[in-house]
Amino acid sequence: MKADLVVRDLDVLLTMDEARGEGPLGPIPNGAVAFRDETVVWLGPSQEAPEASRVVVAKGEVGLPGLVDAHTHAVWAGSRTDEWEARLRGAAYQDALAKGGGIHSTVTATRAAQPETLTELTTARLRHLAEARGTTTVEVKSGYGLDQATEVAMLKAAREAGIRAGVNVMTTFLGAHVVPKEYANRRDAYVTELVQVHLPAIVGLADFVDVFVDEGAFTVDEGRRILTAAKNLGFGLKIHAEQLTYTGAAQMAAELGAVSADHLEQIDEAGIEAMARHGTSAGLLPGAMLSLRLPSPPVAALREAGVSLFVATDLNPGSSTFYDLLTCASLACLTMGLTVEESLLGITSRAATALGRSDVGRLTVGGKADFVALRPAPGEPATPASILQHVGGTRLTSVVRGAAA
Amino acid sequence: MKADLVVRDLDVLLTMDEARGEGPLGPIPNGAVAFRDETVVWLGPSQEAPEASRVVVAKGEVGLPGLVDAHTHAVWAGSRTDEWEARLRGAAYQDALAKGGGIHSTVTATRAAQPETLTELTTARLRHLAEARGTTTVEVKSGYGLDQATEVAMLKAAREAGIRAGVNVMTTFLGAHVVPKEYANRRDAYVTELVQVHLPAIVGLADFVDVFVDEGAFTVDEGRRILTAAKNLGFGLKIHAEQLTYTGAAQMAAELGAVSADHLEQIDEAGIEAMARHGTSAGLLPGAMLSLRLPSPPVAALREAGVSLFVATDLNPGSSTFYDLLTCASLACLTMGLTVEESLLGITSRAATALGRSDVGRLTVGGKADFVALRPAPGEPATPASILQHVGGTRLTSVVRGAAA
Repeated sequence: MKADLVVRDLDVLLTMDEARGEGPLGPIPNGAVAFRDETVVWLGPSQEAPEASRVVVAKGEVGLPGLVDAHTHAVWAGSRTDEWEARLRGAAYQDALAKGGGIHSTVTATRAAQPETLTELTTARLRHLAEARGTTTVEVKSGYGLDQATEVAMLKAAREAGIRAGVNVMTTFLGAHVVPKEYANRRDAYVTELVQVHLPAIVGLADFVDVFVDEGAFTVDEGRRILTAAKNLGFGLKIHAEQLTYTGAAQMAAELGAVSADHLEQIDEAGIEAMARHGTSAGLLPGAMLSLRLPSPPVAALREAGVSLFVATDLNPGSSTFYDLLTCASLACLTMGLTVEESLLGITSRAATALGRSDVGRLTVGGKADFVALRPAPGEPATPASILQHVGGTRLTSVVRGAAA
Repeated sequence: MKADLVVRDLDVLLTMDEARGEGPLGPIPNGAVAFRDETVVWLGPSQEAPEASRVVVAKGEVGLPGLVDAHTHAVWAGSRTDEWEARLRGAAYQDALAKGGGIHSTVTATRAAQPETLTELTTARLRHLAEARGTTTVEVKSGYGLDQATEVAMLKAAREAGIRAGVNVMTTFLGAHVVPKEYANRRDAYVTELVQVHLPAIVGLADFVDVFVDEGAFTVDEGRRILTAAKNLGFGLKIHAEQLTYTGAAQMAAELGAVSADHLEQIDEAGIEAMARHGTSAGLLPGAMLSLRLPSPPVAALREAGVSLFVATDLNPGSSTFYDLLTCASLACLTMGLTVEESLLGITSRAATALGRSDVGRLTVGGKADFVALRPAPGEPATPASILQHVGGTRLTSVVRGAAA
C-alpha cells in the first residue's frame, strides 16, 4: 500500500480513540498517520509507517484530529466593535439594547444582508478557523434572522460556507434566540410561529434545534413547547441553559433527550442529575463566561455525575468574540478547572459526540482525513499538557482535510 | 527622498504619539509609514507617501508600533507541564512545592543549564514572540538562579538572546523572587547576600531591580532594604506587589521611586494614592490573574487616581504561561474592564514608559523602525476596538524591525 501522505515522527499522535485501550486520548508515541483518497488508511508507530508520495516529518510535534467547535454563531452580518468599545467605556448593555443595539443590531444587519454576503462572510470565518486555528468541524447556529426568510438564508449560508471553506458544518436552528422586537408585546405569537411555520420550513436544513432559555430570552415552558415540536419533526435538540439565571432549562431539555445543554454557570444538582441520566453533554464556553464575568460552571459536580464535557468558542459578534478553540481549551483548564484530558477530548471526540458524529474528532483507520499537528512552545515538550498550557506559544503546523461533509 | 520600505493604505495607523494632537492613540486614517536605514523617515496619509524600493499595501489593516511586553520571566530551563497537569487533576501547589516542584523545580533546572542553553531557549522564545506575536520589546527578569552565577547567566542570556532574536530587551534582576531552599532557615542572610554581593555584581547587566513581596516570598521590610540598596547603585526599581495578599509593598516601592508596581489585585487606596503621587505605573497581568483565579485589580480606582496602566503577559513557566500579548490585552478589556484605548496604550507607549524608554512603543519620525500590522477578523472593521475584540480572529500580517537595542 502506498499512501498519498504520511505524517510521521510525531512525538505523540493522539487518536482520541479510546478503543485502542491506551486511555481516552488513544496516544501512539512516536506516531504516524497515513492518508489516501481523503481517508486515514493507517495509524501506528513511525517505524512501521507505509511509503507515501509525500512525507511530512513532524518531530517535536503532537498530532490529533482536526478540532471540533460544537457551539458557534458564525453566520452574521454587521459588527459590534463600536458597541463593545462603548461598553468598556461604561455604557450599559441595556442602554445599547434600548437603542436597537446588542443582538438587535446584528439581527438588523443580518436581515439586510444578501444571502451571498452571508455565505461569503461565513466562508471567510470558517476558512480562518480551519487554516489558522485548526478547527475543521463547526456547529453553526442561526438566530440572527428571527424571520423565516433570514433564518433559512442563515442555515443555507452555513452549509454552503462549509463546502466552500472545506469545513464540516452542522447546522442548528436558533429562531428562539431572543423575541424579535416586532413581537415584543406578543411573544406567544412568536413561539406559535416558530412551532407552526419556522420548524416545518427548516426540515432538511438544520440538524438541531436550540432554544435560549434565560431572563430576557425564552421561558422553560416556551422552550419545552419549541423543543417538543422539534423532536416530533425529527430534529436533534440543544439548549442554551442556566447561563445568567437558573431556570431549570437543562433538566427540561435533558428529559426531552437533548444532545447537549450549553453554558450552565448556574446549573443545580437536579439539572446535573437529569443531564447525566439522559446522556446530555455539557457545553462549556469560557469565552462567554469571561466576557460576561460569570462564575465557572460546577465542573467538579458535572464530572462526578458522569456528564460528558465539551469546550467550544461560542463564537458570536457580541458576548464571546473568541475564534481560537485551542485558547478556549486552555482557558477551560485555567478558569474552569478542566483537566488536560477533559479539555482535549472536549475539543475533539466529546465535541463530536455532542454533534452526534462519530466520523470527526477521532482518528481511526477508514475514517476521514481530518488531522492537525501542533508544535509546542519553544523548549517545551510535545505533550498533551504542553500544547494547552502555553497560550499563544503552541503553533499550528499542519492541517490535513478531506472533503467536508 | 526614497525610502527602503513603505507600508501604505492602512485603514488606520496608530502612532501612539499623543503629541500629534489627535488623542492618545495618535491615529492617522488611511495612513502610511516609510522606513530607511532602520529608522522611521516619514508618517502620514497614504496619498502623500514617499516612493520606496518596496511597497506593502496594507488595506484593511491596522498599523501600530511593535508591541512592548514590560513584564516577563522569559529565561528559564526545564518545563512544568507535568506539574500543571497534576494540579488540574487536583494536586495542591503546596504539595508540589514540598516535593521540590513549583518555582523550585525551575530553579533547579535553570541552575543546571549551561549558559548557552539558557541563551538558546530564550532566543527561541523571543523570536517566537516577535515573529508570531508581534512583540518586539520585552522586559526579561532573572530570578530562577537565586545564586550569583546563575542570576548573572540569566541576565547575560536575556541580553544576548535579544541580539540574536532582534528583540529589544530590558533586563531586570529578580534575585528576590523567592527565598532559595538552601536559605530557608536563614532568610536574613539571603537578603544580606543580595544587597552586599549580588547587586554590586549585576551593575551594567540589569536595567532594573525587582522584588516579589508577598506571603511566601519577601516582606515589605526586606523589599525596602533591597530596593534602597538598588536605588543607591543607580538601578531602576520595580516590584511584584499586592498579588496574593495585601502587604503595602506598592506604596513602599512608589515612595522609593519605582517605575512600576505589578499585579495589584489586592491593592488599597493608600497604595494607589502613593503610586499616583510618585508616577509609578501599574502592571496589569491578566494571565496570572486568571491562572491563579484572583479578583481583578481595582482598575477604576487606578484610572481615577491617574495611574498609568500597562498590560503584560508575565510569561513564566508556572503561573502565567501566556505568550500572546495581544490576547492578554483583550483579556485585560474583558476581565479587568480596561478600555480599548487603555489596553492598546498598555501594550505600546505606556509599557515603554514603564521601562523608561521613549524609543519604542511609539511611531515618530526619526524613531526606530519598529512596526506591526494587524488584519482584523473576517468581516470586521480595521479599527482599534476590532483588533482587541476578536481573540484569535485578528492576524499579524507584518513585522518591521530595525536593529534591536
